[in-house]
Amino acid sequence: MEFIKGLEGITRTRFQEFLEKADGEETIIEGAVHSVRDMGEIEFIILRTREGLIQTVWEKDVATSASHKIHEGDCLKVTGIAKTEKRAPHEKELRIKSVEVLSTASEPLPLPIGKWVLNTSLEAKLNCRALALRNVKERASFRIQEGLVRAFREYLYQQGFTEIHTPKIGAKSAEGGANMFKLSYFHRPAILQQSPQLYKQMMVGVFERVFETGPVFRAEKHSTRRHLNEYISLDFEMGYIDSFFDICKMEAGYLKYAMKLLQSDYQKELKLLGITLPNVEQIPYVKFEEAKHLVAEKYNRKIRNPFDLEPEEEELIGKYFQEEYRADFVFVTHYPSKKRPFYAMDDPSDSRCTLSFDLLFKGVEVTTGGQRIHDYEQLVDKIEQKGMTKEGLEQYLDAFRFGIAPHGGSGIGLERLTMQLIGAENIRETSLFPRDMSRLEP
Amino acid sequence: MEFIKGLEGITRTRFQEFLEKADGEETIIEGAVHSVRDMGEIEFIILRTREGLIQTVWEKDVATSASHKIHEGDCLKVTGIAKTEKRAPHEKELRIKSVEVLSTASEPLPLPIGKWVLNTSLEAKLNCRALALRNVKERASFRIQEGLVRAFREYLYQQGFTEIHTPKIGAKSAEGGANMFKLSYFHRPAILQQSPQLYKQMMVGVFERVFETGPVFRAEKHSTRRHLNEYISLDFEMGYIDSFFDICKMEAGYLKYAMKLLQSDYQKELKLLGITLPNVEQIPYVKFEEAKHLVAEKYNRKIRNPFDLEPEEEELIGKYFQEEYRADFVFVTHYPSKKRPFYAMDDPSDSRCTLSFDLLFKGVEVTTGGQRIHDYEQLVDKIEQKGMTKEGLEQYLDAFRFGIAPHGGSGIGLERLTMQLIGAENIRETSLFPRDMSRLEP
Repeated sequence: MEFIKGLEGITRTRFQEFLEKADGEETIIEGAVHSVRDMGEIEFIILRTREGLIQTVWEKDVATSASHKIHEGDCLKVTGIAKTEKRAPHEKELRIKSVEVLSTASEPLPLPIGKWVLNTSLEAKLNCRALALRNVKERASFRIQEGLVRAFREYLYQQGFTEIHTPKIGAKSAEGGANMFKLSYFHRPAILQQSPQLYKQMMVGVFERVFETGPVFRAEKHSTRRHLNEYISLDFEMGYIDSFFDICKMEAGYLKYAMKLLQSDYQKELKLLGITLPNVEQIPYVKFEEAKHLVAEKYNRKIRNPFDLEPEEEELIGKYFQEEYRADFVFVTHYPSKKRPFYAMDDPSDSRCTLSFDLLFKGVEVTTGGQRIHDYEQLVDKIEQKGMTKEGLEQYLDAFRFGIAPHGGSGIGLERLTMQLIGAENIRETSLFPRDMSRLEP
Repeated sequence: MEFIKGLEGITRTRFQEFLEKADGEETIIEGAVHSVRDMGEIEFIILRTREGLIQTVWEKDVATSASHKIHEGDCLKVTGIAKTEKRAPHEKELRIKSVEVLSTASEPLPLPIGKWVLNTSLEAKLNCRALALRNVKERASFRIQEGLVRAFREYLYQQGFTEIHTPKIGAKSAEGGANMFKLSYFHRPAILQQSPQLYKQMMVGVFERVFETGPVFRAEKHSTRRHLNEYISLDFEMGYIDSFFDICKMEAGYLKYAMKLLQSDYQKELKLLGITLPNVEQIPYVKFEEAKHLVAEKYNRKIRNPFDLEPEEEELIGKYFQEEYRADFVFVTHYPSKKRPFYAMDDPSDSRCTLSFDLLFKGVEVTTGGQRIHDYEQLVDKIEQKGMTKEGLEQYLDAFRFGIAPHGGSGIGLERLTMQLIGAENIRETSLFPRDMSRLEP
């Protein structure tokens, strides 16, 4: 009998290893042809590996010319000799001894992905997504995104949270019936969850602290630069809190951890994209009403809607806190009850507002969170006040009827957070395959 | 202006800290009342915290009786004095000085969750899921599940994989039209993805190595102990492979890493559930046809379907390799082309079978994987042979037309893996809120 014993036998030269090779060492590199340049006596074949570009050199007196058979997009396995070369990327190149063509591209690429900046419209990029992302700057944004999710999980594991997976198909959802995609589930009407809210609250009764990173679905008829109809939500919920500030603190703790992780493990991508990480050491907080008045006064703006923040108002709040406190983030607290869902806890000192918050990052809301009602009777009353029924909420309500700790939590939009961090103009830049009102493919 | 500066100010006594307290030290513990026992002079109030049970003791000469106001399910904040006590769980108890009731349960619980083993039918447990999982053994399974997902990500990050998020709503899917949930997407017909297959292949052209952990949806009309209609798939896909054995090796590497992580970080749960971790140091592999014949011969069984494995056959293969090689896992390779999807690469030496595999764990398939076709022309031919059309696959095919490395990958069913590891009878035990043909709630 033969056995598989793990990774032994798979050996690949990784990028860093290549850079550390001594001059004259034989090395094998695999990668896709990023560009080919024929200089007469020699040809430069730049390979794109997952970690960066590597210059390989074909000397015509060593081997016969390659350019007639090597094209952009081909995947190669190159054996060669490492050599220090000041003009090469990372000051290292590979002098080719032999090339094995692993696969070939049948046509020249429709996008100039080998260019440093892919100067193509968003529309064109999305229409060739799998190709456009081969551009090294384009793909770097998604490495940054990985860092943000990874930091979220790592930080919360450390804080004693349990990771959960809640169903995306359901019979009823947190915030009533609007804005939900409907489907047929074995001949029964069903919906796609717009949030794991009710599930994560139920799980506070089990694990005390839980988190989930997964897709949520919103059938909102928005067509803006900051809305997606399917996105990744970074959700956490925690019991035994003293106030909703504990949630803000946990989120601030995450952001600090995330920036540190990006700094240490994603330095290459930060440089490539020219990102300056935001200041998260201290995040100011301000009440909703006060925030409204501060910007109305400073920027001479009329308050039109007292119950919500208009996008322009969010931008101005961001601007205000940048100018006054050099703060990139600001917690806006005590949102009006009218605009918050049934499970939000009202402020006992003023029931017109809730013990909840939004976190703005450079003027865009990236998180909604707050304390939730934990008392069963209070929750039932609130459901009635909101004109909802208990139907479909039986198991959710049982979690409260049989005791649950004071708790709260928050939901972070991963793509929004990425967008603000990398300074993208449009949220579609930060979703591999965005779903919006007109885009369902690929 | 006031600022949030991360976690400072949130101090909770964690379980391990409590166990390490010296006798006489004052400590604050928060938790839910697991049980109350009145012994006359003293009362034992067992608290359930996220990390385990803690015995607290109310001495009647120290404080007035608590039992008339403390009930199972209440959440408490207890201040007391730590004391070594041989008969208490973990040989440590807390002598109560004062109690703050954080929230109250309005009724006795409908399930005896305070019992060691929750001897209740699966049906009853699922009907009170949020309560049943409060039982310490019930919830432990999901901590093990966390370890499995966490290990998957940690291991693949180390191996240079990039984490991706692909859309769950789409216009068309990997394996054609059957078995998919249909929905309306802004008046256009759409489906829920039954696998991230096509997306992860496209992303091989971008990041070389990618993985995703997310929900997949299958509208299969199965009602068995090992099928769910929504489950979590642990998917990876990697470029520059030499053969499909590289995929097996990567998966074996993951399993080794996962068992180590469970051993180190989930020891408490392993003990609680009495789990003996499987042997993953070496995993045998056997060709599909050979496996069929081996068990037909040894267990005197007729081969009925030459193109697929019946569940009973999988069980017998598991049994065979357990008996012959003390192996818990076995890779069954070279599945018939007839039963594999269009993207599977045929074996060049025998086109009736593919360079693919299933991984069986104690006789149940937990993974499907293999090498994929990377040549554009070959792929187009295969699509035609399978009677499919290129419609809807344009962007997918472009990833091949413009060059992609030889690659392969696999998809692991998280709930199946958990089920076999913890020895559950039914896969529904391993999904927080299972979705099956009849269960859409809560």
